[in-house]
Amino acid sequence: MTEKRASIGARRNPETETAILDAAAEILAESGISGLRMEAVAKRARAGKATLYRWWPTRGALLLALYRRRKPVAAYPDTGTLEGDLTAVFAQVFAHWHGETGQIFRSIIAAAQAEPDVAEALAEFREERLAGLREVVARAGVRGELAPDAVPARLAEAVIAMLWYKLLSGGLGDDPRALARLLCQGWSAMKTSPDVL
Amino acid sequence: MTEKRASIGARRNPETETAILDAAAEILAESGISGLRMEAVAKRARAGKATLYRWWPTRGALLLALYRRRKPVAAYPDTGTLEGDLTAVFAQVFAHWHGETGQIFRSIIAAAQAEPDVAEALAEFREERLAGLREVVARAGVRGELAPDAVPARLAEAVIAMLWYKLLSGGLGDDPRALARLLCQGWSAMKTSPDVL
Repeated sequence: MTEKRASIGARRNPETETAILDAAAEILAESGISGLRMEAVAKRARAGKATLYRWWPTRGALLLALYRRRKPVAAYPDTGTLEGDLTAVFAQVFAHWHGETGQIFRSIIAAAQAEPDVAEALAEFREERLAGLREVVARAGVRGELAPDAVPARLAEAVIAMLWYKLLSGGLGDDPRALARLLCQGWSAMKTSPDVL
Repeated sequence: MTEKRASIGARRNPETETAILDAAAEILAESGISGLRMEAVAKRARAGKATLYRWWPTRGALLLALYRRRKPVAAYPDTGTLEGDLTAVFAQVFAHWHGETGQIFRSIIAAAQAEPDVAEALAEFREERLAGLREVVARAGVRGELAPDAVPARLAEAVIAMLWYKLLSGGLGDDPRALARLLCQGWSAMKTSPDVL
């Protein structure tokens, strides 16, 4: 079977892909991130290890694939203002992260601190997310909300930094609008309102 | 020996404390965070487990004690401006985190995602750090750099969020001044300069 799978190269068989991701999700639920081993996944999915490694070259890549399956990449809504857009981003991501999905992403960040292949897969995923956030910021630029020489890449990083921090420190219950305002308005200019307090 | 230690209550014996922390640091260096077990530490330090648990009730507390020993809590310098103060904070913390010390703190954040006692010890440590950063922000308020109704606690959180994110994503080489400016100046007002690009 390994040879057969290997022979089809990078062209994916959807049934096999689903079987592999289902098996990986089961193992993750049963034994946690440390129990997720490529051999165990291939065995449970009745798939060839060559197939598994061809499609997801590392354990980190497989972990991110599991997370991606739970979080279809959606364009962030255009609310007409940067503060509104960022409020939606925080609200959307926090809601998605409540429960097991957030636990998976916390585990991925944790594993990335010790496992280079997980770190590499996470960096790739982070770059995608940063690209999406740079678009949100660029949209604000088009609206004339940003200084013409603002650096969208840096602003996008500040959003991801706050998202990760809230996830990793148990802060998913925080107020999305207050966080959006904190990042948008700047400190010397920041006006507070009841929901910031 | 356990009984003897237990009998001295919370009053710490400096030699024993040093012996325990040295033993824990050796074990951490040899076998990583997962190898750091209370029993192994007590044994190597020739200390009673009761003593160890009395002074550091959890493995997480012991880990943070190891980290604290490497990072004496220093007041952040007053440079005369918020941007200057935050530049100093990022530079100071990034420099401290380069190498093994940063690896220990990354491990602590990682372990906190799965181990409640580590999460609790980390939360306590984070609160101390937030308090220090709130002072930096309050200082800016006294200088008249902040809106009178700015919320120092939130501003301090944005700094910690960026610090953690840079540590966890391999960004300790980033430019402290650019990060300080990003957080200080606010997006709509943000002026960039070569070191931001």
